[in-house]
Amino acid sequence: MVTRSTSAVQWAQSFIAPVLVPGCLAVDATAGNGRDTLFLARGVGPQGRVFAFDIQPEALERTREQLAGAGLLERVVLLATDHREMAAHVPGTVNAVMFNLGYLPGGDHRIITQPESTIEALKAALSLLAAGGRVSLVVYTGHPGATEEQKAVEEFTQALSPREYTVVRLSFWNRSAKAPVVILLEKAGART
Amino acid sequence: MVTRSTSAVQWAQSFIAPVLVPGCLAVDATAGNGRDTLFLARGVGPQGRVFAFDIQPEALERTREQLAGAGLLERVVLLATDHREMAAHVPGTVNAVMFNLGYLPGGDHRIITQPESTIEALKAALSLLAAGGRVSLVVYTGHPGATEEQKAVEEFTQALSPREYTVVRLSFWNRSAKAPVVILLEKAGART
Repeated sequence: MVTRSTSAVQWAQSFIAPVLVPGCLAVDATAGNGRDTLFLARGVGPQGRVFAFDIQPEALERTREQLAGAGLLERVVLLATDHREMAAHVPGTVNAVMFNLGYLPGGDHRIITQPESTIEALKAALSLLAAGGRVSLVVYTGHPGATEEQKAVEEFTQALSPREYTVVRLSFWNRSAKAPVVILLEKAGART
Repeated sequence: MVTRSTSAVQWAQSFIAPVLVPGCLAVDATAGNGRDTLFLARGVGPQGRVFAFDIQPEALERTREQLAGAGLLERVVLLATDHREMAAHVPGTVNAVMFNLGYLPGGDHRIITQPESTIEALKAALSLLAAGGRVSLVVYTGHPGATEEQKAVEEFTQALSPREYTVVRLSFWNRSAKAPVVILLEKAGART
């Protein structure tokens, strides 16, 4: 039942949902308040695992609370690690990786994701991605540094081979230029 | 199971699917080869109705064949009528309207949808749309006249009130500028 307009996060989750199959691995590259981690944990089932990265202890603690509250903490590995290092911490190919780029809502707005490290993390995500796997990036805009990050993500994803990746860019067309942009990416090939 | 990259038509159908509830009314504003009419007919159920418009007899005949082959023709009203006139032919509010803008694949490429009549048809579609209802527009590009039509649709939808409509514009980000653009629109309010 649709009772409110569809947000950027809902678009990202709707795109990711079909690739979450029981027992698969998934990554929340920016745990933040744990909303996407919770969504992924529900989707991977009891035998699946979600690897949730955040360099801010406050974010990991919020995520831990969310998951514990839902009784799903055992499906999640919380990593106080830079998401650029994700390939070293995830023990196999993943069906889904989710990014929310910007600052932690309610947290320290001076701590924002940075273009260089975001692109490195995105490369790491693609290296882990299974055939048919999907990546979502919700790019928040309007804060200092946002334009550079959006530009970096848009240029990197636009240059990906169309034979290897389908890339869709979604914008909220009748809202201000500060509305988030969503980039959705699917790796070619049938999922196994 | 995702086995191939997601096309513009699949994006449109995925967006429309959740609002197709048994017994509702829906419109295929550009019946073409009947692909969307068939999709809508499946979604509205035996008590629902799909109103399929096309000014080309060839398109309506193809649509009739598709629906008859699937045993769903009785759910569909085929109208050899300009889609600008849809409000006069649909007997109630609709949950979904789908547009494919361009020319009939395999048909006469000189017969294309025109910016002025497309915007009139889109206004008619919005006048019929129920609260929570959705409209999809797949805008094919690359043929003569396509740029004007894309511009007209983009400008019209961008000017819609964000309180009344959520409008999302979806582009195939790592493909040529000739790739189709998809505009997805949701009317505010809870569906009844």
